[in-house]
Amino acid sequence: MNAPLPAAVAAPFYQAQGDECRLFEAAWQQQLPVLIKGPTGCGKTRFVAHMAARLGLPLITVSCHDDLSAADLVGRHLIGDGQTVWCDGPLTRAVRQGGICYLDEVVEARKDTTVVLHPLTDDRRMLPIERTGELLEAPPSFMLVVSYNPGYQHVLKTLKPSTRQRFVAMSFDFPAPDVELAVLMQETGIAESQARQLVTLAGQLRRLTGYDLDESVSTRLLVYAAKLMMSGMSTQLACRTALAEPLSDESDTIAALLAVIDTQFPAR
Amino acid sequence: MNAPLPAAVAAPFYQAQGDECRLFEAAWQQQLPVLIKGPTGCGKTRFVAHMAARLGLPLITVSCHDDLSAADLVGRHLIGDGQTVWCDGPLTRAVRQGGICYLDEVVEARKDTTVVLHPLTDDRRMLPIERTGELLEAPPSFMLVVSYNPGYQHVLKTLKPSTRQRFVAMSFDFPAPDVELAVLMQETGIAESQARQLVTLAGQLRRLTGYDLDESVSTRLLVYAAKLMMSGMSTQLACRTALAEPLSDESDTIAALLAVIDTQFPAR
Amino acid sequence: MNAPLPAAVAAPFYQAQGDECRLFEAAWQQQLPVLIKGPTGCGKTRFVAHMAARLGLPLITVSCHDDLSAADLVGRHLIGDGQTVWCDGPLTRAVRQGGICYLDEVVEARKDTTVVLHPLTDDRRMLPIERTGELLEAPPSFMLVVSYNPGYQHVLKTLKPSTRQRFVAMSFDFPAPDVELAVLMQETGIAESQARQLVTLAGQLRRLTGYDLDESVSTRLLVYAAKLMMSGMSTQLACRTALAEPLSDESDTIAALLAVIDTQFPAR
Amino acid sequence: MNAPLPAAVAAPFYQAQGDECRLFEAAWQQQLPVLIKGPTGCGKTRFVAHMAARLGLPLITVSCHDDLSAADLVGRHLIGDGQTVWCDGPLTRAVRQGGICYLDEVVEARKDTTVVLHPLTDDRRMLPIERTGELLEAPPSFMLVVSYNPGYQHVLKTLKPSTRQRFVAMSFDFPAPDVELAVLMQETGIAESQARQLVTLAGQLRRLTGYDLDESVSTRLLVYAAKLMMSGMSTQLACRTALAEPLSDESDTIAALLAVIDTQFPAR
Amino acid sequence: MNAPLPAAVAAPFYQAQGDECRLFEAAWQQQLPVLIKGPTGCGKTRFVAHMAARLGLPLITVSCHDDLSAADLVGRHLIGDGQTVWCDGPLTRAVRQGGICYLDEVVEARKDTTVVLHPLTDDRRMLPIERTGELLEAPPSFMLVVSYNPGYQHVLKTLKPSTRQRFVAMSFDFPAPDVELAVLMQETGIAESQARQLVTLAGQLRRLTGYDLDESVSTRLLVYAAKLMMSGMSTQLACRTALAEPLSDESDTIAALLAVIDTQFPAR
Amino acid sequence: MNAPLPAAVAAPFYQAQGDECRLFEAAWQQQLPVLIKGPTGCGKTRFVAHMAARLGLPLITVSCHDDLSAADLVGRHLIGDGQTVWCDGPLTRAVRQGGICYLDEVVEARKDTTVVLHPLTDDRRMLPIERTGELLEAPPSFMLVVSYNPGYQHVLKTLKPSTRQRFVAMSFDFPAPDVELAVLMQETGIAESQARQLVTLAGQLRRLTGYDLDESVSTRLLVYAAKLMMSGMSTQLACRTALAEPLSDESDTIAALLAVIDTQFPAR
Repeated sequence: MNAPLPAAVAAPFYQAQGDECRLFEAAWQQQLPVLIKGPTGCGKTRFVAHMAARLGLPLITVSCHDDLSAADLVGRHLIGDGQTVWCDGPLTRAVRQGGICYLDEVVEARKDTTVVLHPLTDDRRMLPIERTGELLEAPPSFMLVVSYNPGYQHVLKTLKPSTRQRFVAMSFDFPAPDVELAVLMQETGIAESQARQLVTLAGQLRRLTGYDLDESVSTRLLVYAAKLMMSGMSTQLACRTALAEPLSDESDTIAALLAVIDTQFPAR
Repeated sequence: MNAPLPAAVAAPFYQAQGDECRLFEAAWQQQLPVLIKGPTGCGKTRFVAHMAARLGLPLITVSCHDDLSAADLVGRHLIGDGQTVWCDGPLTRAVRQGGICYLDEVVEARKDTTVVLHPLTDDRRMLPIERTGELLEAPPSFMLVVSYNPGYQHVLKTLKPSTRQRFVAMSFDFPAPDVELAVLMQETGIAESQARQLVTLAGQLRRLTGYDLDESVSTRLLVYAAKLMMSGMSTQLACRTALAEPLSDESDTIAALLAVIDTQFPAR
Repeated sequence: MNAPLPAAVAAPFYQAQGDECRLFEAAWQQQLPVLIKGPTGCGKTRFVAHMAARLGLPLITVSCHDDLSAADLVGRHLIGDGQTVWCDGPLTRAVRQGGICYLDEVVEARKDTTVVLHPLTDDRRMLPIERTGELLEAPPSFMLVVSYNPGYQHVLKTLKPSTRQRFVAMSFDFPAPDVELAVLMQETGIAESQARQLVTLAGQLRRLTGYDLDESVSTRLLVYAAKLMMSGMSTQLACRTALAEPLSDESDTIAALLAVIDTQFPAR
Repeated sequence: MNAPLPAAVAAPFYQAQGDECRLFEAAWQQQLPVLIKGPTGCGKTRFVAHMAARLGLPLITVSCHDDLSAADLVGRHLIGDGQTVWCDGPLTRAVRQGGICYLDEVVEARKDTTVVLHPLTDDRRMLPIERTGELLEAPPSFMLVVSYNPGYQHVLKTLKPSTRQRFVAMSFDFPAPDVELAVLMQETGIAESQARQLVTLAGQLRRLTGYDLDESVSTRLLVYAAKLMMSGMSTQLACRTALAEPLSDESDTIAALLAVIDTQFPAR
Repeated sequence: MNAPLPAAVAAPFYQAQGDECRLFEAAWQQQLPVLIKGPTGCGKTRFVAHMAARLGLPLITVSCHDDLSAADLVGRHLIGDGQTVWCDGPLTRAVRQGGICYLDEVVEARKDTTVVLHPLTDDRRMLPIERTGELLEAPPSFMLVVSYNPGYQHVLKTLKPSTRQRFVAMSFDFPAPDVELAVLMQETGIAESQARQLVTLAGQLRRLTGYDLDESVSTRLLVYAAKLMMSGMSTQLACRTALAEPLSDESDTIAALLAVIDTQFPAR
Repeated sequence: MNAPLPAAVAAPFYQAQGDECRLFEAAWQQQLPVLIKGPTGCGKTRFVAHMAARLGLPLITVSCHDDLSAADLVGRHLIGDGQTVWCDGPLTRAVRQGGICYLDEVVEARKDTTVVLHPLTDDRRMLPIERTGELLEAPPSFMLVVSYNPGYQHVLKTLKPSTRQRFVAMSFDFPAPDVELAVLMQETGIAESQARQLVTLAGQLRRLTGYDLDESVSTRLLVYAAKLMMSGMSTQLACRTALAEPLSDESDTIAALLAVIDTQFPAR
């Protein structure tokens, strides 16, 4: 399903789960912006890095936050050596290079970012740089990708419908067990038997309900646990440190997580 | 109904639905500012671009947002090459050029924008530039157009009555099926039979009620779906990606949208 | 009642309704600041322009807004050509010229404006310019006029009693039918019969109650409708565009407005 | 009771009502800061101006507001002619000159003003100027006077107890009828019979209860009414303009005020 | 109990009430920061001034407020004479001099002050100056003292537990009658009989409950009353001005305070 | 359990309680960021200082607060000597030096800090410096450590799940009695019998429930009490000053704490 493409650099490992690679490529061909939805640590960022490498495109990633403004994305004048120099922001750099600009957790960004995203998602595909008066036309290879986690949103932090409707969208979830097993072994070098145990444990932890858990165990945290095990920590200590403590501060919740871990990996 | 006019550039394709072109032209002749109301993706921006081309006027578009201030519209002093240079904002440029300034989603802008919009909507038609002391008189060809989506507004974000009453207003809605069919085929090159299926589907999706949908399927999203189909995606995958996922994050809502899509385009 | 006065420029047309011109002139003679209350579009701004011309005084108008600060009114230092230059704000210009400073919708301005308005409304009539240390004495001909619309106010946006009590106040309302008729004909050149129909319609629309209407049809909007009619639009289309759509986004409310319009001007 | 004092300038007219002049002078001799409480327009500012003249002291008045900060009071660096110049604020000027600094409506000021007021109200009587590192000792003749209106305060806007307890305090109210009569005649030149009518009317209006009145008719507004009468306005029109419209926007409240006025001054 | 210590300057008068002097000295010896809690005007500031003089240490006092930031305490770059000069803030000056930095009403300060207070209260006793990259080590004689009034706090304004736990703490209250008597006579020169009457009155006023009193009569206000009496004011007028009016704006509360005063000092 | 490691400087005293040292070292070897949870004053900061010394790494500590922004961590341009100089922030310094950056109370920091923390916690381990365009790769020895106190958090101040899941986490609590005894003696030189009494008292105070206590007695406060005793204060006075007054302002709560202290250390 992953058709060979000329790739400038070796694509980082990504284990496809369905049509996502073909769909992403079609959107890029049609110059459509893409919205990726999915939980923390499920592989969204890796997927975008993989596709950028396969398509031979530069990738510029921005972690969005409450104070990220349009000027942070577009650029600003800086004073240096006694003169003022314009400094492109990451979005402008991506447009100039004809690469992918990936805005991670885009719902966190300030609302004035819409002023630069909207013209880029029109058929015009323009980036107006108000401060310099420049009006930059995006080359055909430029692509805008945004992501967020729909399971964890403030009431006040959502994409406006008028922004959402400018993207085609795809939903991600945690990988299927076989895929996750391959990811763990590839990323950490852990033995298959141990990796399988961790994947089984992840499934049990993700089915745990009725506790104060904003999110469940991610593939990333499984990788962390495997790495601690590779460094000589006991399975139980590694899982407690990487799979229980990062998820909650509530003693009841942690106790429940630990109970599942202890059942899977009894203390020796 | 679209009387021939001297046009500097070829007007972008716009399929009129009623009197909107004549009304816009009359307002321009009478130097009245215009307010356009309507849902996201129904063609407001395209309409303004079309009219600007037909009237032979430059068009300057501003996507408004929470932090858009009067200074962003009017201009500011920038420091460059050791001296300070005044830099016109988009509104000032439109006034100087005698073109159309189009403020998209004007209700998002900060309230200090009223200080520059009000004198432009009086019979004086002046733009005071406080920072330079300049008082700019708008030429007869200058026109102020604003738009917003009345179906999606914050309580705290509305036009003040004292601002609204300075505009003549027109309401837009999604195009009638035949018009939308023509738009789809013109924009994407899709076959009529497929376009007709998409328009029929859009009607069914727009009639879906009782779900958490801020807005319904726009003409823009139909164009996206058609483009994905033109790139080889299956109809079902294209509709899921372009017509369901962009509209909601609620699993119930998405399931309902997919059910309608599946009924129209059964999986092969 | 409008006693002839030496006027530097031709006074803009204003149709007096009562004692307002004499009262304004007496306040100016006695060096008292004036507060004008009244709905949007009833002619407050035109009245002030008329009186300024009759009294032969320069008029400087400021549309107040949420971010209007004392510095915006008084002035600030600007950097230009490598040196710093003080730039008078509109209030300071009015004081220096001995003219009228008219603050439209004064309740919108930020609270620090009181620091400059209060000394100007004392018997001292001083404008302290903190930034330069200048203490400007207002000449006898200087007059401060403020206005707002009492029918549309935020709870948080009112004049403090300690500010209100520094003004004499007068209330404006929409003109009586005969006056409004004269205004319409004078402003647009519309025929008397059509003007009379519009004035009659305005009376009916203003009596409409029980709907979500922040404000009712203003004289300004009647002028807009007449202008559209002068440009060849049908009466019904002109009224829909100028008298119904600008007033509300609620479909029930618009339907009620349109019903009144249709009764007065049945579709041909 | 007003003991003769060497006065540099003629003291503005002030009609004492009790011990306030002696008390103010004692506080000045003992170097105690003074807080004056009382309604808008009752003569607080005039009293301070009178005492400053009687004591032969310069007076610097600051109308406080929401955005008044310590830097506004103390001073700041300004850029001018290519170099930076320190510019004393009004409080610093008063300390250097050994005069009276009068902060009108001090509760409106921002909280960082306490940082400069507290050391000035200690036995140290110092003004620290952080920005320049200067520590200014107040001369014996320096006096700090603050005022506010306890009848009109926001919940969030009160003096902190730790600030209040640094002042001796006196309460002001509207003058007794005979005193107010003298004030009106002195200020406007109105005939005694008309002045007496206005004072009687003020008493009736001030007794009006049960309406939405933040404050009642002030002596200042009586002076306004008398001035309009001196300019030829009828008594009824002058009272409506100066005593009813400035007090409220509520039609019921205004009607009640007008009813009292009409009873006192029936229309001729 | 006040052991003789080498003192650079004459210590300001302070009447010890218990172990506070020894405890303060022990904390200084052990390089522990001190928190002083107590009502307004009970002598906290005087106590710190007294101890600073007894220990022969420079004292730098900062009245904290809502806008006091870390930069205000540490210092900032100022532009002067065409070049940028670093200007130490009060905390930095105290660290460099090895003196006492006293932050009065520390709960009012902005939260970023913790970034500079925490490292100074660790065993490291460092002051990091981010802006210059300097890392200043506090000399052994440096001491940090903070105070606030626990009886008057906003819900939102408390010391974070992680900050509180970095201080040893002592509670202050109004002095015992004999101590307060000595303070009054020492500070104002008032006769013992009159001072005793004021102290007795203070006791009665402080026992008054059931009224809207944020705080009660402080020793400072008693000093004010005695000073007014020394300036020839009657006891009743002095107490009304210094002990009743500064405490409240509520007429019921003031009446109750005056009733207590009248009972103690009947009008002659 | 504390395996010998080459250490550049003598590690500050730290009494390990379990696997925390091995776990920290494993995380450092695997280049995983670490989150430490635990109450105020339980030794988190000391533990990080100890591990930094054992691993021979530079340690840069930042006390986070409400206004700490990404620019504070990364750096900014400063103007000095007529030219602009880039000044690395503490995080950038730690990355360049390949040391440990310890963000104490990370939940207090502003949200834009995520933009710099996320790329450092990816497998990329990059620090993008937007202002200079530099993209800094963290050397293998660089480690990011953050901490906070889960027992004391604002509702609005938590780590976002997408941030939490980027760390392995460990929980700290107050040391076991024997460990705390050793800490006290090591830090203050107090006799074992007195240290034991303080540890016993701490246990009793920590079991106190039902009072308004945000946090309980920390090891740090026990050290303070011991130091005051070493300076000659009575045990009771030392405990009152170091263990009761710093914990609460509520008289009931303080009385309860004092009752426990008095039972353990009866007044002589």
